[in-house]
Amino acid sequence: MHGVHDGKQIKVGVLGATGTVGQRFILLLAEHPYFVIHALGASSRSAGKQYAKAATWKQVKPIPSQVREMIVDECKPEHFSECAVVFSGLDADVAGDIETAFRAAELAVFSNAKNFRRDPNVPLIVPLVNTAHLSMIPQQQSLHEPPLKKGFIVTNANCSTTAVVIPLAALERAFGPLESCMITTMQAISGAGYPGLPSLDILDNVVPYISGEEEKIEWETLKILGGIATEDEGTKSFDMHSRHPLRVSASCNRVAVIEGHTETVSVRFARRPPPSPQQVREALQAFTSDAYSLGCPSAPRHTVFVHEEPDRPQPRLDRDFQQGAGVSVGRVRQCRVLDIKFVVMANNVAIGAATSSIINAEFAVVKGLIQA
Amino acid sequence: MHGVHDGKQIKVGVLGATGTVGQRFILLLAEHPYFVIHALGASSRSAGKQYAKAATWKQVKPIPSQVREMIVDECKPEHFSECAVVFSGLDADVAGDIETAFRAAELAVFSNAKNFRRDPNVPLIVPLVNTAHLSMIPQQQSLHEPPLKKGFIVTNANCSTTAVVIPLAALERAFGPLESCMITTMQAISGAGYPGLPSLDILDNVVPYISGEEEKIEWETLKILGGIATEDEGTKSFDMHSRHPLRVSASCNRVAVIEGHTETVSVRFARRPPPSPQQVREALQAFTSDAYSLGCPSAPRHTVFVHEEPDRPQPRLDRDFQQGAGVSVGRVRQCRVLDIKFVVMANNVAIGAATSSIINAEFAVVKGLIQA
Amino acid sequence: MHGVHDGKQIKVGVLGATGTVGQRFILLLAEHPYFVIHALGASSRSAGKQYAKAATWKQVKPIPSQVREMIVDECKPEHFSECAVVFSGLDADVAGDIETAFRAAELAVFSNAKNFRRDPNVPLIVPLVNTAHLSMIPQQQSLHEPPLKKGFIVTNANCSTTAVVIPLAALERAFGPLESCMITTMQAISGAGYPGLPSLDILDNVVPYISGEEEKIEWETLKILGGIATEDEGTKSFDMHSRHPLRVSASCNRVAVIEGHTETVSVRFARRPPPSPQQVREALQAFTSDAYSLGCPSAPRHTVFVHEEPDRPQPRLDRDFQQGAGVSVGRVRQCRVLDIKFVVMANNVAIGAATSSIINAEFAVVKGLIQA
Amino acid sequence: MHGVHDGKQIKVGVLGATGTVGQRFILLLAEHPYFVIHALGASSRSAGKQYAKAATWKQVKPIPSQVREMIVDECKPEHFSECAVVFSGLDADVAGDIETAFRAAELAVFSNAKNFRRDPNVPLIVPLVNTAHLSMIPQQQSLHEPPLKKGFIVTNANCSTTAVVIPLAALERAFGPLESCMITTMQAISGAGYPGLPSLDILDNVVPYISGEEEKIEWETLKILGGIATEDEGTKSFDMHSRHPLRVSASCNRVAVIEGHTETVSVRFARRPPPSPQQVREALQAFTSDAYSLGCPSAPRHTVFVHEEPDRPQPRLDRDFQQGAGVSVGRVRQCRVLDIKFVVMANNVAIGAATSSIINAEFAVVKGLIQA
Repeated sequence: MHGVHDGKQIKVGVLGATGTVGQRFILLLAEHPYFVIHALGASSRSAGKQYAKAATWKQVKPIPSQVREMIVDECKPEHFSECAVVFSGLDADVAGDIETAFRAAELAVFSNAKNFRRDPNVPLIVPLVNTAHLSMIPQQQSLHEPPLKKGFIVTNANCSTTAVVIPLAALERAFGPLESCMITTMQAISGAGYPGLPSLDILDNVVPYISGEEEKIEWETLKILGGIATEDEGTKSFDMHSRHPLRVSASCNRVAVIEGHTETVSVRFARRPPPSPQQVREALQAFTSDAYSLGCPSAPRHTVFVHEEPDRPQPRLDRDFQQGAGVSVGRVRQCRVLDIKFVVMANNVAIGAATSSIINAEFAVVKGLIQA
Repeated sequence: MHGVHDGKQIKVGVLGATGTVGQRFILLLAEHPYFVIHALGASSRSAGKQYAKAATWKQVKPIPSQVREMIVDECKPEHFSECAVVFSGLDADVAGDIETAFRAAELAVFSNAKNFRRDPNVPLIVPLVNTAHLSMIPQQQSLHEPPLKKGFIVTNANCSTTAVVIPLAALERAFGPLESCMITTMQAISGAGYPGLPSLDILDNVVPYISGEEEKIEWETLKILGGIATEDEGTKSFDMHSRHPLRVSASCNRVAVIEGHTETVSVRFARRPPPSPQQVREALQAFTSDAYSLGCPSAPRHTVFVHEEPDRPQPRLDRDFQQGAGVSVGRVRQCRVLDIKFVVMANNVAIGAATSSIINAEFAVVKGLIQA
Repeated sequence: MHGVHDGKQIKVGVLGATGTVGQRFILLLAEHPYFVIHALGASSRSAGKQYAKAATWKQVKPIPSQVREMIVDECKPEHFSECAVVFSGLDADVAGDIETAFRAAELAVFSNAKNFRRDPNVPLIVPLVNTAHLSMIPQQQSLHEPPLKKGFIVTNANCSTTAVVIPLAALERAFGPLESCMITTMQAISGAGYPGLPSLDILDNVVPYISGEEEKIEWETLKILGGIATEDEGTKSFDMHSRHPLRVSASCNRVAVIEGHTETVSVRFARRPPPSPQQVREALQAFTSDAYSLGCPSAPRHTVFVHEEPDRPQPRLDRDFQQGAGVSVGRVRQCRVLDIKFVVMANNVAIGAATSSIINAEFAVVKGLIQA
Repeated sequence: MHGVHDGKQIKVGVLGATGTVGQRFILLLAEHPYFVIHALGASSRSAGKQYAKAATWKQVKPIPSQVREMIVDECKPEHFSECAVVFSGLDADVAGDIETAFRAAELAVFSNAKNFRRDPNVPLIVPLVNTAHLSMIPQQQSLHEPPLKKGFIVTNANCSTTAVVIPLAALERAFGPLESCMITTMQAISGAGYPGLPSLDILDNVVPYISGEEEKIEWETLKILGGIATEDEGTKSFDMHSRHPLRVSASCNRVAVIEGHTETVSVRFARRPPPSPQQVREALQAFTSDAYSLGCPSAPRHTVFVHEEPDRPQPRLDRDFQQGAGVSVGRVRQCRVLDIKFVVMANNVAIGAATSSIINAEFAVVKGLIQA
């Protein structure tokens, strides 16, 4: 295994540990080469109980033995003071206050919640794309009242945004800026958490609407693919891809799939003539993330796996490839309206959620932002 | 009931009567006000048997009593000589030869097969859209060797094309020509016939590919929405929307739905500024087909039903509205890349298949093209 | 149509009108020949609103026009004083108190809730089986404090019980008492109401457990198939099949089916030798309910439809036969452990719920227990 | 890892290598500690092609690299002469002739096909249950014309039989013979192979019939749980449990599950009083297979995993436990008709198919029946 970590173990905590995303964090961290689960936070209803009693475990893999009997704490910073990293799988209705308090207590928070994604000082990072946005952290710390030394918040993107920005980033790196992008998603039910979508709504059905989802894709894509501008007085800001305006239009649908969001994507490049389908295939396949290059152990070798078969990717067959840490692309071909169209499939509960937070934290370790 | 038919019964035949589409024809014709099933054609394997023995009936409704004991014939014109109309639910691998023979025998053939859709003298008619294309029939007859008096072929469109051209036609009628259209389909398994799609391919899955489907949508849409040009020497031809070039791009997917194709659609109008979402909603809702206006009994009152709820249409809830003879539209809103986007859902086995053929024949009756 | 009702309309109310069962009551009553919806009851949250606004309508058929703008009331007897019949689709947590109050207010309550099923004075009636148990109503009224003249409660059975007791009743009528019965159910998700079962629990899955369901089948079957005993002092009691003890064992499972409970059933007869499979088929097919014979308009002509095909009944193909008011049986064959085994399928939201309550009320009308 | 194998690699072949079961054999053998894939056999249509070209790969895991470019042979013994073991995933229509030829060529054949299961000299072995039946092999060899030295055929059981005989064997070992057993199965679609079940037949549906399946369970259970009788002249025969007659009755159903057969089981013991549910739970949990005890590397540590949660086992959550090599039992409780009832779930494509063949071969290695 490549990687530059020195081998020391780093204590981490999980907020929202009994929920769907929290369970995923626990499964991934239980096998992590250097992150070690040290504290688990959940609601006051779960606090004080053994984890196996507190959680309604709904994963295919059993509860890792090292957390079965761990006592769940309330989500208060004092219970996590020994943690160098805190992962948050909290629901949006409580994530804002709790993550704010954890940051103020000088904890490094890597959150899957949406609350801070639009914060002008919080990086919104898809770890295979824009780890460079970690450079916003010093400003986030210095603008805090009082200024922070170690505490900060990093968020990852919405699961359906993550799927599409990875190939888009590969295309922009190879061929320059995109001008427009049309996306239709066919999203898995696990994206709605548990209990989430009633079975009566989705069996033998498509629901052509997911509240707030289209807005997330259309906005988050700009923040992630954009750069960081520095104004005269030295203040940094996310430029929302404004140097080359990018129009994104999304149509979001829920389908009867357990895991794996499938998305049809069409793009128009600024560059004329646009690249050919074959050039696009090669660029996607060649794309390598900094996270992988710099040795983040959870980063996949194939950031984008490009299928040649005409009927792939398919969520059931492709979602577990590389433990769901990369994305799968197929059907790269010309589009009669824009330039190029393709299909992308990403595991919404892996790279679309907990895996992203973990790679983000690994990258922060590499960059020296985490003190073990 | 409105309508101008004089009440006389018209004898009809069904080709491919034991197949999936044939079964649908039989269910619809069994309750038809004036079409009466007179002959059933199938392969030589089925010929000579009672229909209930020959068909593997896979419909929710029972076999209509009037056809249970009807003897199935081979698909030869002599067995259908008393039929004024022949509906074809034949598979593409045999439809070409058989339909050719039936036309040559002076039979009026209304086909759901794809074989003649691209024929320059055969109308490709979605009956809620372009019944005017029946005007090509005299030329089809006169160019035949020998010229025909009564025989002709009319085809209806592919199911996924049908769903989208209906609202597109409504938009063009209200706001003038479209410039481009992007479509992503989520198509039901019944579109693949029986046995069709293996269950292992679609349960907990999306298949982002349907062979030939995207090409059908992109090509058929132009023939259907286009007009008929008359050249100097009087020859007519389908103009493929060439007066106002229209670019159509489709991405086709199979999802775990039994009936009802759901499609996300984005369009750009030639007219600037484009209509607002509210204007589009009103135009769609107001759109009435000539088939309905002229009294075709199978034409739906609401050609396009526009939903106001944010999460409709849904195939399971909306596919049986009006016996599946119209389409349902919802989520009409602005598109950041083109002008307007919306969702359309159509019952692929009703208006997407047999119902279209039947309304086409009803319209031909109204126009005096059928001699009972 | 057969039937003895005099044609006068009878005003009815629906309790729990906005819920899943309530919506079914409304669909059925909207097309009823003499019951007319006069009042709708729901929680205080819905009270005062138009029905179309109060209900989250989840049915394939649209909201009937006559109730769209009807104002929903709270479930208090004074709002239903003009109703001759009240149908209850209330949840069990509130049904007890509300139905008690309605009965005390001299209203005839036909309930789908489980609360009074085990009450020694309340008939538990599957209308195709044991309408004779209505004879318990006078005792129910006379034992009430104060005695009642018109008010009473009749319940129908649990959906999975209903499916199996109908063929069991047919067998006992033809061949005398049963000794034992083993049942395994494969139940539809609609049996759990809405939102009911989370989609993550049932897609690509079987859940081999439904809380309380096996006990209901094992107990309710005895009450329904048993008779009414009269003790020396004239007191009547349900005899729980005690003259011929019947052992029932059920295993209940949830499967990914929207509507229609499928159950495998094996039975042992007291009579030796037991009837042959062919005799059983004939007896099932010949079984006619008193409800049908006496003209209840919602009672199906075929109480038990017996399939000859080896692979039927199937919920998707057979649940809508006769509007789901009868049951379908197939695969009648010998059992190596007990005597005879077969498969039964019943529509859990029709005869398994609202349809049963309505036929029960129709039968009570026939018997003069309802004063319009 | 426990185990007595000496570490030498053993060359194996796979017949029917391109089919569903063949693909499973390949995935398992690619990671096997001592079996090494040496030859692949398929139909003449595939012969001569690279495996990755010949197979329509439908597994979640990618094609193992060591077989991607391996050339597929026809299923003729001369191509497999270097193999010490041949695994057969052939379809029943060809398995008989091919396996006969391979045995005659002195090859050891471990077959998943049904053809020889009822052969009086061929062991039908569920490897966690009756490996002792390998003792029939010498007689199989000596009765062959000409007598064989190394060649033989061993079959494993039908997938739905396998699931139930494992707990039944545990019960008989602990509590003595069973008298009767009632089984209802809810079987996964993968049991029907590929393309197998049409999606239109199973989505939103249950099919209460699988051709020949009930007979297999009822017959195979007796052969597997029975012993081997030796007659006066020394001839051995399978006694079909005849010393303690056992009546088995099965009802088989197909449900919308991808992998994992769930079965409800009720049993009656000869012994009175019967064991309590708690005794049964303990006996099931304690049951250890000889295959595991003697070090077969693919044998699971937990032959029967007993769940305490009321709603387990579930196929989606439990089928991958121990790579699907054991079975999961839950809901052990009293039965009102027989003695004890429970639910068992087994992975039909693992222990229900290829995994069984492989453990059988491992056991034959341990017993010295295979010469590497």
